[in-house]
Amino acid sequence: MSAPVTIPGTREQCAALDAVDPLAPFRKEFTLPANGVYLDGNSLGVLPVRTPEVVRRTVEEEWGRDLITSWNKHGWTELPYTLGDRIAPLVGAGAGEVVVCDSVSVNLFKLLTAALRMRPGRRTVLGERDTFPTDLYIAEGVTGLFEGGSSVLMPSVDDLDAYLDEGVAAVVLSHVDYRTGRLLDMAEITARVHRAGALMIWDVCHSVGAVPIELTACDVDFAVGCTYKYLNAGPCAPAFLYAAPRHHAVAEQPLTGWFGHAEPFAFDSGYRPAEGIGRFLTSFPSLLALSGLRATLEIWEQVDLREVRAKSLALTGLFIEQAQGLDVVTPRRPEERGSQVAIRHPDGFPVVQAMIERGVIGDFRAPDLIRFGFTPLYVSYTEVWDAAAALREVLASGEWRAERFNRRGAVT
Amino acid sequence: MSAPVTIPGTREQCAALDAVDPLAPFRKEFTLPANGVYLDGNSLGVLPVRTPEVVRRTVEEEWGRDLITSWNKHGWTELPYTLGDRIAPLVGAGAGEVVVCDSVSVNLFKLLTAALRMRPGRRTVLGERDTFPTDLYIAEGVTGLFEGGSSVLMPSVDDLDAYLDEGVAAVVLSHVDYRTGRLLDMAEITARVHRAGALMIWDVCHSVGAVPIELTACDVDFAVGCTYKYLNAGPCAPAFLYAAPRHHAVAEQPLTGWFGHAEPFAFDSGYRPAEGIGRFLTSFPSLLALSGLRATLEIWEQVDLREVRAKSLALTGLFIEQAQGLDVVTPRRPEERGSQVAIRHPDGFPVVQAMIERGVIGDFRAPDLIRFGFTPLYVSYTEVWDAAAALREVLASGEWRAERFNRRGAVT
Repeated sequence: MSAPVTIPGTREQCAALDAVDPLAPFRKEFTLPANGVYLDGNSLGVLPVRTPEVVRRTVEEEWGRDLITSWNKHGWTELPYTLGDRIAPLVGAGAGEVVVCDSVSVNLFKLLTAALRMRPGRRTVLGERDTFPTDLYIAEGVTGLFEGGSSVLMPSVDDLDAYLDEGVAAVVLSHVDYRTGRLLDMAEITARVHRAGALMIWDVCHSVGAVPIELTACDVDFAVGCTYKYLNAGPCAPAFLYAAPRHHAVAEQPLTGWFGHAEPFAFDSGYRPAEGIGRFLTSFPSLLALSGLRATLEIWEQVDLREVRAKSLALTGLFIEQAQGLDVVTPRRPEERGSQVAIRHPDGFPVVQAMIERGVIGDFRAPDLIRFGFTPLYVSYTEVWDAAAALREVLASGEWRAERFNRRGAVT
Repeated sequence: MSAPVTIPGTREQCAALDAVDPLAPFRKEFTLPANGVYLDGNSLGVLPVRTPEVVRRTVEEEWGRDLITSWNKHGWTELPYTLGDRIAPLVGAGAGEVVVCDSVSVNLFKLLTAALRMRPGRRTVLGERDTFPTDLYIAEGVTGLFEGGSSVLMPSVDDLDAYLDEGVAAVVLSHVDYRTGRLLDMAEITARVHRAGALMIWDVCHSVGAVPIELTACDVDFAVGCTYKYLNAGPCAPAFLYAAPRHHAVAEQPLTGWFGHAEPFAFDSGYRPAEGIGRFLTSFPSLLALSGLRATLEIWEQVDLREVRAKSLALTGLFIEQAQGLDVVTPRRPEERGSQVAIRHPDGFPVVQAMIERGVIGDFRAPDLIRFGFTPLYVSYTEVWDAAAALREVLASGEWRAERFNRRGAVT
């Protein structure tokens, strides 16, 4: 995890690193903007070159030609499980511990409800105030269903001990903060939460595919993650859910749809949950949506996540060094950093627009954060060097003050 | 709605009806099995001819080329609403009353929870014992979250009055029974449920696109429906949800994800529901999944549902007449019939397999039902005539007794 990171100091050194980059061969697997640097893979991953053909086959051959026979002929019935098993190595989990279904929000709802039921004497869900809001909204939604339930927001995870009282049933944290890019210590925090008698649920949306994750080794109870950022499965592609095997027999999630039934095709009138991870299923994900995930996982099966992590740290380290003098809010210590860099700027919105005009695609998060995501499979050292130079030029020139950059409405 | 239905009595009459069928031009819009008759559109609708290109554009141009700019450039942010507005005419609803999101099960969970909260003195959800099971399982899941909540199953909707007591908060019924094809009187039942002080939630999965639906005129409170059967949006395509405008301000659904927030991109830490139908959103549907719906709705905008209904009744009536002597469980009265015909047979499974070998694709529902769905946009009178003949021959010959037809495992 903590291999020494080489930070290039010149554009030539960047080019030299690109020339020996073990991940460089993956770049050709992706469709990249013709004249630009895409530093927004932490929001929406790019299209893998192989995906259109996999989608086409799913549409024309599986749906169009084979119709209902595809449930067996093309393994549709098993996809939530088989795709989950293929994601498992990316999060340090075993077979039968990850399932692909629904969205991050819906899956978190299932897990939080199950967690509150597993801690009947405790009614609080604890989260960070500035984490990705949907997790907090869902915690509100779940605790609102329990007498005395409440969703409590810490100012920061650094206040965890002060908040971890005997009322806390579950803690929900984002492994990497969507704004700052701060990476949390999953093992240490999980252990601390467990010592306080609570369950630990990790949201790995901003780390999966960018940071090696060890759910089993960290003794995590539950996790949720998305597949449309670093995994490149397509816009709003289906999410995944992890549950530690020790909880499979006892967790009771309330979204008891027919695909979570022990025998979906028995058409019983009463619900009886499936054994194992299957009980967390509700309904079946869209096959078109799943086709994007099927395609990109073919790439991920060839990736060494240690190489991803090493390059990610080098790219983010490079950008931070080249952004000296700016208000970088991303931790400088490698072990506290995910794969993005955020810079605070009161006029972040027009600055991002001016960068996009220069071909460097980052994004803006209200109220004042400029974010750049670094996806090691398709971003080069040279590109990061050039992006940092562009940012310095945009800020020095004041070109972002042009009226055309100040029109709101962009969703990035 | 109740135009006189002409039932052809000979294959020649079928051909004559096909020749003047006002819906015949739609047949070329669909990819149909080369040598067969597809009578399973009530399970999975076929692929529209135009869909692969719409999907390709979504994948290659919107995702691949335009990336995050597609949120605005291609109207992604509005799709749950704009697609909902395009479905609205198919269910007799107005703009801003239907939203596309999640699955039928997840949407029913939202609506049932909201309904129980709207009737605080009542804790029962009432359903039919033999309705599509996921609705019952979700009712179990929801009522399990409420103190004293219970999901009560009537033997049949014919027993409704006996079960409609003061404890009933909501009644959930399928507009068309997935097994028998029985169509319920939406207006009359909704009124009866309202007189008892309960809310009425209709599942229109098996009627939308086959039967004209009048949610507004019938004073319905809530409805859920799928898009992958008669609407042909693709396997497990996103579902839709209807809520009567009178409930928008008061309904509180618990799956409070960020896309249901009044300002998703303000990234507030506290949840504040959107005005109107938007509060029923949780997260964003897969754009690949939505592309199938975008494509097929282009067809539906040209369809007159009265013509669909007239042909549907003629096709089902023809099949029932030609199936005389068999145990047809589908109502013979047109006003009680959806767009499928079910036949009870103790060896239904192998009979269906033998029919498939003859090129007639229907399906089997445990324990003993053979189902044939009739989709007026792409099934012809002649095909139905031939399918009925094939069924008579399969049963008369006993060919279904062959060992190869008795291997289980098919999911249809």
